[in-house]
Amino acid sequence: MKAVALTCLLFLSFSVSSQSYTGDEKDIGMILSNIKDFSNSVMNSDYQAIGKAYTEDAKIFPNNRDIIAGQDAIIKYWTLPEGLKTKYHKITPEEIKIIGNEAYDYGYYEGTTLRADGTESNWKGKYVIVWKKLNDEWKIYLDIWNSIKN
Amino acid sequence: MKAVALTCLLFLSFSVSSQSYTGDEKDIGMILSNIKDFSNSVMNSDYQAIGKAYTEDAKIFPNNRDIIAGQDAIIKYWTLPEGLKTKYHKITPEEIKIIGNEAYDYGYYEGTTLRADGTESNWKGKYVIVWKKLNDEWKIYLDIWNSIKN
Repeated sequence: MKAVALTCLLFLSFSVSSQSYTGDEKDIGMILSNIKDFSNSVMNSDYQAIGKAYTEDAKIFPNNRDIIAGQDAIIKYWTLPEGLKTKYHKITPEEIKIIGNEAYDYGYYEGTTLRADGTESNWKGKYVIVWKKLNDEWKIYLDIWNSIKN
Repeated sequence: MKAVALTCLLFLSFSVSSQSYTGDEKDIGMILSNIKDFSNSVMNSDYQAIGKAYTEDAKIFPNNRDIIAGQDAIIKYWTLPEGLKTKYHKITPEEIKIIGNEAYDYGYYEGTTLRADGTESNWKGKYVIVWKKLNDEWKIYLDIWNSIKN
């Protein structure tokens, strides 16, 4: 009985405000931690860390471009031109659902780009991510997003 | 042995050109059939059929808009203004992976819009869909896409 109760406790579906997270608590925690790390990597222009957030065969889907596949191409996509910096980046997942060694996740992102001349632009949007668990690490396999008008 | 062989036959991963479909053959067949039906519904302006392709609590993610949730709001989004018609619509899935009663699917779409004045515009893009199997039917739960420049 104790084991059953523990299993129920670990495999739970819990909601924080409108957010819904379903799956093993440890897995959910790892994905939430990865999401926070991703934003920090973007703000630090740490492109190697951004690349490592993805699986080797990951695909990203930026607007007005073809699908971009593989860590190297993804790092190239994320690398900002000289003089640009993402000074603020935040991802707010609305739902995360673990299904075995895969998970889907959707929600919102927002950020601020700082230019060399000191001007800034704010942007926000929404995304869907498919995660894969490889060697006990959760990595992004599919990453697609688009804008929400400010 | 016969039963094992049959199981292996039914649960297969097969590739058609660059396309990769993983999961029960019947489920893959149902999703492929739904994808074709969806394009037909769009070309026929059959908005009720489009609505029924989604789960009751589905979310769509059109560019420059907030997330749109629920069949009624989704039907409203898909309903074209008077004088517009989608005369061509095609979805080409690159990968479909069934994971229990959920599946992810990504690929390309393309279409042609016909205006009342006879002019046409062609468009194409890429998408990620999360499917859910409910009462032995596969329905779209998350549907996000964005453009590829012509």
